[in-house]
Amino acid sequence: MVELESILNDLVIANRILANENVVDAYGHVSVRHPRDPQRFFLARSLSPERVERGDIMEFDLDSAPVDPRGRTMYIERFIHGEVFKARPDVTAIVHHHSPSVIPFGVVAVRLEPIYHMSSFLSAGVPVFEIRESGGPATDMLVRNSALGAALATTLGDCAVALLRGHGNVVVGGSIREVVFRAVYTEVNAKLATEALRLGQGRVTFLNAEEAKASTVTNRAQIGRAWELWKAQALAR
Amino acid sequence: MVELESILNDLVIANRILANENVVDAYGHVSVRHPRDPQRFFLARSLSPERVERGDIMEFDLDSAPVDPRGRTMYIERFIHGEVFKARPDVTAIVHHHSPSVIPFGVVAVRLEPIYHMSSFLSAGVPVFEIRESGGPATDMLVRNSALGAALATTLGDCAVALLRGHGNVVVGGSIREVVFRAVYTEVNAKLATEALRLGQGRVTFLNAEEAKASTVTNRAQIGRAWELWKAQALAR
Amino acid sequence: MVELESILNDLVIANRILANENVVDAYGHVSVRHPRDPQRFFLARSLSPERVERGDIMEFDLDSAPVDPRGRTMYIERFIHGEVFKARPDVTAIVHHHSPSVIPFGVVAVRLEPIYHMSSFLSAGVPVFEIRESGGPATDMLVRNSALGAALATTLGDCAVALLRGHGNVVVGGSIREVVFRAVYTEVNAKLATEALRLGQGRVTFLNAEEAKASTVTNRAQIGRAWELWKAQALAR
Amino acid sequence: MVELESILNDLVIANRILANENVVDAYGHVSVRHPRDPQRFFLARSLSPERVERGDIMEFDLDSAPVDPRGRTMYIERFIHGEVFKARPDVTAIVHHHSPSVIPFGVVAVRLEPIYHMSSFLSAGVPVFEIRESGGPATDMLVRNSALGAALATTLGDCAVALLRGHGNVVVGGSIREVVFRAVYTEVNAKLATEALRLGQGRVTFLNAEEAKASTVTNRAQIGRAWELWKAQALAR
Repeated sequence: MVELESILNDLVIANRILANENVVDAYGHVSVRHPRDPQRFFLARSLSPERVERGDIMEFDLDSAPVDPRGRTMYIERFIHGEVFKARPDVTAIVHHHSPSVIPFGVVAVRLEPIYHMSSFLSAGVPVFEIRESGGPATDMLVRNSALGAALATTLGDCAVALLRGHGNVVVGGSIREVVFRAVYTEVNAKLATEALRLGQGRVTFLNAEEAKASTVTNRAQIGRAWELWKAQALAR
Repeated sequence: MVELESILNDLVIANRILANENVVDAYGHVSVRHPRDPQRFFLARSLSPERVERGDIMEFDLDSAPVDPRGRTMYIERFIHGEVFKARPDVTAIVHHHSPSVIPFGVVAVRLEPIYHMSSFLSAGVPVFEIRESGGPATDMLVRNSALGAALATTLGDCAVALLRGHGNVVVGGSIREVVFRAVYTEVNAKLATEALRLGQGRVTFLNAEEAKASTVTNRAQIGRAWELWKAQALAR
Repeated sequence: MVELESILNDLVIANRILANENVVDAYGHVSVRHPRDPQRFFLARSLSPERVERGDIMEFDLDSAPVDPRGRTMYIERFIHGEVFKARPDVTAIVHHHSPSVIPFGVVAVRLEPIYHMSSFLSAGVPVFEIRESGGPATDMLVRNSALGAALATTLGDCAVALLRGHGNVVVGGSIREVVFRAVYTEVNAKLATEALRLGQGRVTFLNAEEAKASTVTNRAQIGRAWELWKAQALAR
Repeated sequence: MVELESILNDLVIANRILANENVVDAYGHVSVRHPRDPQRFFLARSLSPERVERGDIMEFDLDSAPVDPRGRTMYIERFIHGEVFKARPDVTAIVHHHSPSVIPFGVVAVRLEPIYHMSSFLSAGVPVFEIRESGGPATDMLVRNSALGAALATTLGDCAVALLRGHGNVVVGGSIREVVFRAVYTEVNAKLATEALRLGQGRVTFLNAEEAKASTVTNRAQIGRAWELWKAQALAR
C-alpha cells in the first residue's frame, strides 16, 4: 500500500503542477493507472486541478465507471482516460486539458512538430481528432462516452499526444512524471513552433526522427529534475 | 434580503475576479440586475474594479439614474448597463471593459469567432459598434448618454458580446457567474483566434452553429467550477 | 514646502509604478519640474527605478547640471530631461525608458497610432529620433549631452511621445500622474497595435484626430483612478 | 580565499537570477573560471538553477573532469564549459540554456541582430551550431563530450552568443555579471526582433557595427545596476 499512497500523492502533486505551470486553468484532468491492477485507474472527482486534494481521488474501471461513487460528481470526459488506458497497455498516466498555445494547431492545417530536444516525444506524430467523424456535426465537443473515447484512442494510435479540434489535447506517458513533463513541453513547443513558423515563413528545421528518438531516451533520465522544481514551486503557492 | 446580499457580495467578487484575471485594468465595470425589481440594477461607484467593496455598490434605475447618489462619483458609461438591461430582459449581468486581446478585433475587418468549446457563446455573432454612426465623427469614444447606450444595445441585438471600435467590448449573461465566465473566455478566445488565424493564414475551422449551441448548454452547468477557482485566487491576493 | 514634498513623494511612487507595470526594467528614469522654479527639475541619482527612495532624488538646472551633487552618480541621459523641459514650458514631467513593445516601432517604417481611447494622446504624432542625424553614425546610442538632448527635443516637437531608434522612447505630460499614465498606455497601445496591424494585414481603423482630441480631454479627469490602483499595487510589493 | 568565496556566492546568485528572469527553466547552467587558476572552472552539480546553493558547486578541469566528484551527478553538457574556456582565454563566465524567444532563431534562416543598445554585444554575430555537422544525423542533440564541445567552441569563434539548432544557446562574458546581463538581453532582443521583423515585414534598422561597439563599452559600466536589481528580486522570492 505504500506504493499506492505514494502514487496517489504524486497524482495530487501533478494536478497542482499542471495548474501552476498554466497548462490547465479551471478545467482539465490527469489520471494514473492502478499500480497493481491494470484494469483500474485513478482520477479526481469533478474539480479544478489546483484544488484537488488526496480525498478527491476516485477509482474507476476501464469502462470509466466509478468503483465507489459515494455520490460524487465526476468529470464528464472520464471516458478519455478509460478508453486510452484500454487501447494503450504501455500508458500509465494521461492528461486531458486545453493548454492555450496548442489550441490553434487543432484548427489549422499546420502540423505540430518538435522544435527542440525538450519536446522530442512529439516526433511520433501529433494527430488531430475530428469529433465530427465519430460524433456527427452537432456534438457539444466533449468526449462524453466510451464510443467517443475509443474513437479518440484510435486517432491517438501509438503517439504521445493527440489534438482535439476545437477543444484541447490529450497527452500520455509511462509515468505521472513523464506525462506532466510532456504536457508542459507540448505547450512550450506549440508556442515556440508558432513563432518559428512565422519567423521562417514556414521554413523551419524540426528534429529529425533519429534525433527525436535518441533525445527521448536521454530526456527520460532528466525528468526528475523538472518534477522536483515544479513540485517545489507548486506547493509553495 | 438574504438573496440580495448574496448577489451584491457576488458582484464585489466579480469585480475582484475580473481584475485578477487581467480582463479589466484600472477601468471597466460589472453590473447586476436587481433580483426582485427588473427596473433596477447595481453597479459600483467610479472606482477600479480591484478596489470595489460592498459599500461602493450603488443602485440605478434603467435610465441609469442613481436611486440614492449621496454625492458619489459615477462611471461615465453607466448608460451601457441601463440601456442593455432595457433592451434585453433575458440579461441579468453586464461587463464593460477593454480586455487587451479583444481590442484588435474591433478595429479590423476580421470577425471574432469561437475557436473552442469554452467560448461557444460567441457563435451568435460578435457585432462591432461604430460610434461614428450614432455619435458622429468627433466623440470622445465613450457611451456617455442613453442615446448612445441604446444604439449600442441595438448593435448588440441578441448576441452575448459586442465590440466597441477603438474602445473595448460589452459582455452580457444570465447571471454574474456567466458574465464573468464569458468575459474571461472572450479574452482567451481573442488571443487564441489571433494566433490561429496567422498560423493557418486565415483558414481556421471554428465551431459550427450546432456545436456551439450544444456546447453552450453543457458549459452552463460547468461555470461554477471556474467561479470557485477564480474566487479563491482573487480573494487570496 | 508641503507641496514640494508631496510632489517628490509622487516622483518616488512614479518610479515604483513604472517598475511594477513593467514599463521600465533596471533602466529608465522619470523627472518632474520644480513646482516653484521652472528652471529646475528633480530626478533620481543613477539607480533602478524600483529601488528609488526619497533620499535618492537630486535637483538639476535646465542644463542638466546638479544643484548639489555630493558625489552621487547621475544618469548619463539626464540631458533628455533638461533639454525637453527647456523646449517645452507646458511639460511638467518626463519619462525616458525602453518599454518593450514600443522598441519595434522605432526601427521599422510603420507609425505608432492610437488604437483606442486610452492612448488618444498619441494622435498628435509619434516622431522617431534618428541619432545618426545629429550624433553621426558611431554613437553609443545615448543622449549623453545637451546637444543631443536639444536635437531630441526638436524631434519631439509638440508631441506627447517620441521614439528613439534602436534605444527606447520619451514621454511627456502635464503632471507626474499624466506622464505615468501615458508611459503605461504607450506600451499597451504598441502591443495592441502590433497585433491589429497583423490581424488586419495593415488595414486598421485608428482614432481620428477629433476623437483623439476629445478623448484626451476626457481621460485627463480619469487618470487618478489608474494612479490610485497602480500606487496601491506598487507599494504592496 | 575571500575573492574565491565572493565569486562562488555570485555564481549561486547568477543561478537564481537566471531562473527568476525566466531565462532558464528546470534546465540550463552557468559556470565561472577559477580566479587564480585559468585551467579550472566552477559549475553546480546536476540541479535546477533555482535550487542551486553554495554546497552544490563543483570544480572541474578544462577537460570537464571533476576535481573532487564525491559521487555527485554532473550536468551531461559540462563539456560546453570546458571547451569554451579552453578556446576563449578572454572568457570568465558561460551560460548554456534554452531561453524561449531565442529557440526559433536557431531553426530558421533569419539572423539574430541587435535591435537596441542593450543587446549591442550581439553585433559580432550570432552563429548557429548545427550538431549534424560534427555529430551526425542521429545525436540526442546534447553536447555530451569534448569533441562536440570543441566543435561548438569553433562555431562560437569570437562571438558573445552562439545558437544550438533545435536545442538552445550559449552565452559568454568577461564576468559573471556580464554573462547574466547578456543572457537576459539576448532573450529580450530575440523577442523584440521577432516582433520588429514581422511589423516591418523584414525591413528593420538594427544597430550598425560602430554603434554596437560604442554601446558595448558604455553598457559594461552599467551592468551593476541590473545585477543589483535582479539580485534583490531573485533573493526576495
